[in-house]
Amino acid sequence: MHVTTELVSKVLQGNVRAAAKLIRGIEDAVPDALKSFETIYAHTGKAHIIGITGAPGVGKSTLVDTVIADLRQRDITVGVIAIDPSSPFTGGAILGDRVRMSRHTGDSGVFIRSLATRGYVGGLSKATISTIHVMDAMNKDIIIVETVGVGQAEIDVTRVADTSVLTMMPGMGDSIQTMKAGILEAVDIFVVNKADQDGAHRLNAELNSMLAMKNYLSGDWQPPVLLTEAINSVGTRALVTEILKHRDFIAAGGELDKRRRARARLALMEAIQDATSNYIDSEIDSSYLENIIDDLTQRKLTPYAAAGIVIGRVIRQVTASADGK
Amino acid sequence: MHVTTELVSKVLQGNVRAAAKLIRGIEDAVPDALKSFETIYAHTGKAHIIGITGAPGVGKSTLVDTVIADLRQRDITVGVIAIDPSSPFTGGAILGDRVRMSRHTGDSGVFIRSLATRGYVGGLSKATISTIHVMDAMNKDIIIVETVGVGQAEIDVTRVADTSVLTMMPGMGDSIQTMKAGILEAVDIFVVNKADQDGAHRLNAELNSMLAMKNYLSGDWQPPVLLTEAINSVGTRALVTEILKHRDFIAAGGELDKRRRARARLALMEAIQDATSNYIDSEIDSSYLENIIDDLTQRKLTPYAAAGIVIGRVIRQVTASADGK
Repeated sequence: MHVTTELVSKVLQGNVRAAAKLIRGIEDAVPDALKSFETIYAHTGKAHIIGITGAPGVGKSTLVDTVIADLRQRDITVGVIAIDPSSPFTGGAILGDRVRMSRHTGDSGVFIRSLATRGYVGGLSKATISTIHVMDAMNKDIIIVETVGVGQAEIDVTRVADTSVLTMMPGMGDSIQTMKAGILEAVDIFVVNKADQDGAHRLNAELNSMLAMKNYLSGDWQPPVLLTEAINSVGTRALVTEILKHRDFIAAGGELDKRRRARARLALMEAIQDATSNYIDSEIDSSYLENIIDDLTQRKLTPYAAAGIVIGRVIRQVTASADGK
Repeated sequence: MHVTTELVSKVLQGNVRAAAKLIRGIEDAVPDALKSFETIYAHTGKAHIIGITGAPGVGKSTLVDTVIADLRQRDITVGVIAIDPSSPFTGGAILGDRVRMSRHTGDSGVFIRSLATRGYVGGLSKATISTIHVMDAMNKDIIIVETVGVGQAEIDVTRVADTSVLTMMPGMGDSIQTMKAGILEAVDIFVVNKADQDGAHRLNAELNSMLAMKNYLSGDWQPPVLLTEAINSVGTRALVTEILKHRDFIAAGGELDKRRRARARLALMEAIQDATSNYIDSEIDSSYLENIIDDLTQRKLTPYAAAGIVIGRVIRQVTASADGK
């Protein structure tokens, strides 16, 4: 108990080792760490969360690296979560990029953590969400979540991000037509990186004409399209300025509150589902459960019918144990 | 009700239009369609499900196309679910590939359906799972689920697949080292496509030496590495032969049963979570829920504490309504 309190107060003071230990503890579901996390939660909700997504190879990590440097020059503290797909399929120079970012490790205003996507269940992994909370409690002003955006990832990030940045590069223009409305509406800032390459201006024009087709209301945020060459720090200062502008914009309107309430709702529903699963795993007789799974495997029951039976049992059991108290 | 029965019997007879209608109805949560789906569920569990994953550009769709043709020559009926990331980030010629596959549309033994990943919540989308069940009820012998494997997708597919095929191409050798054990163990057949390109034999050798480091027991399936040039139908017949060999192998051992039970367990847990969410959405007083979300947003509660309160309310409400009956 003493250890827990000490760990919590160190994390709240921004101690990197304590934070890393807590994050590991949460990942491994160490009871003390989970208890500490509950205490820490009251100190979260202050950081501004930025999602930076894009396909493998567009230069996301380099972009994040220059954004960190720029934010630090403005005396803004930064937490970075680089989500590593742990997969042979991106083909990218993931390790090299991580090495690049490591030049910030001497700076106590920056805390970088790579997370694997292993254990991913629904949207962003729980580890990502917990790491955001820990960095928030450490008093980082801005937390950047960097993910490879293929398929659903870019929408998942917007579920936790206050500002969503989508990074593209020349040659990706053809695919704009296939962009789903849901993705476009979730992006707050578009970046065309590698802007020195052929086709950058065409992609820029295409993004702008696509955005021009939308009917923004006068009070709406109008997503800008920015040209950058992250490798040469070209255009990245303007990107940081836009990010900070968007931060002020959503704080002034009701949008920030709306996003935070939506996140709280999601956290509530996830906690309810966790609690339900945990109860079933630990309190429902396993041979009873296996019989139901047998019937389901043999198609004697449908999943919904089986769910009804198990839920009925949970409720009877909880009620009986409450009555017994 | 009459319509529902008619639709169900048409689907069971393999009618493509009825199946497409049912799949759409399930996607849109039309009550009649959901009812039909419950009826259909009893007729599922017979098809062999194959997952084919790989990075964008490795030639998955061409491979699937030739596999379909080969299976049809063997008089095996096929359902195909092509999961389209609906995203600008893959940069692949998705539409062209779909057009290629469309040569099978005149064949009543093949039913192909593209699904967007929109609405994806945790693992494969519910639409994917429902579509598998509908194709299974249509009596397709083999159902192929084709997904872009980046990050978690390849593990998600193995949660529903009886046989998992991972497609790679020359030049991806460097990334083998970063493969997670979890992914490797989930793959039943490795394919090196575009085997006419430089580096194919190197990738083949690397995969084999990596597999040689594992200690397979005598009764274990030893994942083969196959070289293919899908575009020229080279090596694809051997791939289909391996797939059918793996099908027999897991049916003969206990592995097929094990995978099917694991899937039934997952379906049960998902149905429990759906039922819980639906109950909360429809039966819990919304102003009560909003107050709790307020407290959570303001960090007066942690998600777990809030979950405990809501679950308590659900149980009291369900119990009271049962007592009132």
